[in-house]
Amino acid sequence: MQPPRLVFSRRVRTTPFTSRIQAGGMQMATVYNHMVLPSNFRGLAEDYDHLCEHVQVWDVSVERQVALKGPDAAKLVQLMTPRNLSKAKADQCFYVPLVDEFGMMINDPIAINVAPDHWWLSIADSDVMLWAKGIAYAKGLNVEISEAQIWPVAIQGPKAEELLSRVLGDEVRDIRFFRYKRMAYQGREWIVARSGWSKQGGFEVYVDDAAAGQAFWDELFAKGEDLNVGHGCPNQVERMESCLLSFGSDMDYHTSPLQIGLDKYCHIDEDIDSISLPALRQQREEGLPWMLVGLRCDSGAQNFASTDVSHEGEVVGELRSQVWHHKFNCWLGFASLPTALCQPGTKVEIEGAICEVHALPFSFDG
Amino acid sequence: MQPPRLVFSRRVRTTPFTSRIQAGGMQMATVYNHMVLPSNFRGLAEDYDHLCEHVQVWDVSVERQVALKGPDAAKLVQLMTPRNLSKAKADQCFYVPLVDEFGMMINDPIAINVAPDHWWLSIADSDVMLWAKGIAYAKGLNVEISEAQIWPVAIQGPKAEELLSRVLGDEVRDIRFFRYKRMAYQGREWIVARSGWSKQGGFEVYVDDAAAGQAFWDELFAKGEDLNVGHGCPNQVERMESCLLSFGSDMDYHTSPLQIGLDKYCHIDEDIDSISLPALRQQREEGLPWMLVGLRCDSGAQNFASTDVSHEGEVVGELRSQVWHHKFNCWLGFASLPTALCQPGTKVEIEGAICEVHALPFSFDG
Repeated sequence: MQPPRLVFSRRVRTTPFTSRIQAGGMQMATVYNHMVLPSNFRGLAEDYDHLCEHVQVWDVSVERQVALKGPDAAKLVQLMTPRNLSKAKADQCFYVPLVDEFGMMINDPIAINVAPDHWWLSIADSDVMLWAKGIAYAKGLNVEISEAQIWPVAIQGPKAEELLSRVLGDEVRDIRFFRYKRMAYQGREWIVARSGWSKQGGFEVYVDDAAAGQAFWDELFAKGEDLNVGHGCPNQVERMESCLLSFGSDMDYHTSPLQIGLDKYCHIDEDIDSISLPALRQQREEGLPWMLVGLRCDSGAQNFASTDVSHEGEVVGELRSQVWHHKFNCWLGFASLPTALCQPGTKVEIEGAICEVHALPFSFDG
Repeated sequence: MQPPRLVFSRRVRTTPFTSRIQAGGMQMATVYNHMVLPSNFRGLAEDYDHLCEHVQVWDVSVERQVALKGPDAAKLVQLMTPRNLSKAKADQCFYVPLVDEFGMMINDPIAINVAPDHWWLSIADSDVMLWAKGIAYAKGLNVEISEAQIWPVAIQGPKAEELLSRVLGDEVRDIRFFRYKRMAYQGREWIVARSGWSKQGGFEVYVDDAAAGQAFWDELFAKGEDLNVGHGCPNQVERMESCLLSFGSDMDYHTSPLQIGLDKYCHIDEDIDSISLPALRQQREEGLPWMLVGLRCDSGAQNFASTDVSHEGEVVGELRSQVWHHKFNCWLGFASLPTALCQPGTKVEIEGAICEVHALPFSFDG
């Protein structure tokens, strides 16, 4: 059965680039932070192959920027994450788990240190702004909280640096990973970071003006013809192969960062003022009921909603994400499993088919 | 250009009824509270005609229930809304604007008084749970906050009472508007309220078990053949005609309840402990820059995103929602306009076409 068509409205927001990605062949889409996100142009495998070989321009406007501005901005960000941000450099971006007082995930944004009293949270799919507003109001913090009018454009793939340098200048080559520079374009000054939701290399450009953004978009396509520039979007095959987790799929409000490999971003023993530290310390002491693992399977699950993972006939976990990997000729899965079954090589079943547990990120060498 | 197809995933959640509405001919859908919501089965006009004449079963699982449980539950709900809930009856539902400390909308749920220390907020499309969690944490309130595993089913249309009484018994006929009864079905006990997002009459059944819910769904269809029961969903024609507002479209985080006709739910002068009262009092004193009005137009706007409304060549407001009304042979719109232009009969322009301002709700008599 064909999935339904997606209705656009004011509530399901379009972006300055929507007409361009429609003309560019967007076949399938999703909604993310109340906004349209393409998910498929040529087919998942073809999109993957193109991304890994050439360069793609992605409309990732859905990465909404929750702007925190004022004397207590840094204090509020630190309350929300167990990652120690006290030594943040002026041009730095941070992947931060946002974690509540029960040690459970709220979101996993990139925090951008725009200025000492100004942070952006480039968020995954939950209304982080409301959590920040609730805390700031009730604690009486001196900080303005808003969704900034920013529509990020990602340039991803091995030829991303070459393409972006043609449009913004060679200075982009000097931007280090998870650092940013401010770069001029048509009278605007944009934050340009070496980042993005693929592991093929690339940049995210924080466009703050629709018309200039459209000109920038068109110039990328005009100057990239010989680089085989194309439309693209976060690709389920590439992101699972690269172990980039998706909030809402691989983790949710009932997931601890310690269950999904985010331990290294949780500075549990440091002296920081973060809501989640007591709960995370307790989790570490008491243990957690499941961990996220990789699965390799010969067949895919039928049910797009929730799919059980079983072991010796007993339901033991849930499949969180899956995709057919055309290069490795198998289905990749992320699943929650009890710690005792997380050993690589363990056999579990999904809808009767045998799957093998793998450590994350997947290793495709042997 | 055809809109893209919507991808289901774990993040864009399906419901216990998704396979049924797919088989039932769901043509278009949207995403609401991270979940699939059908928006069109037969065509908007045909869905409207069927709804106004017969009875429809709607999968409104997207009305997620934010459950507040504990000694401070009622206190927290009251903090979030300017509507006085101190005299809530045991079986009562309330339409409540949720309003922040700046007097701006966060959501407009139905608050259900489940028990003295237990409330549900049956929410529109924003993550209210995160706002509630932030406030409760920072204020140290004694309340558990979670998204309950509830998938509401709406039975709407003039034959709704007849159909539901065949399945749940004649007692449903005694349920008054915005009141509820607990009714038994297959060993479960469900809250059944006379409510729903149409003005054609009907009920919402708060299903808490997927298998029993599916049996209930199937029984509604089996026992309603002679009533011409059919699939349905919130209908843009009916809801605009009936002036049911949509959070995210007709209002957002920059809208005061006093701008959109929700004054009667804002008990600004009463002695209640609500976050928004000081700001709402100030708004009332100082006035607000725009109000929501109805528009009748001969042609529809092309741009599904944001569309300007002009007056004598100057941009004065924004179109929030629009729909073609096949019975009244005109386009209906909701738009924001400066107070000076809100007088019924005022002429404004959208994309060059003349529109006439109408008071809300629309009156179709003259």
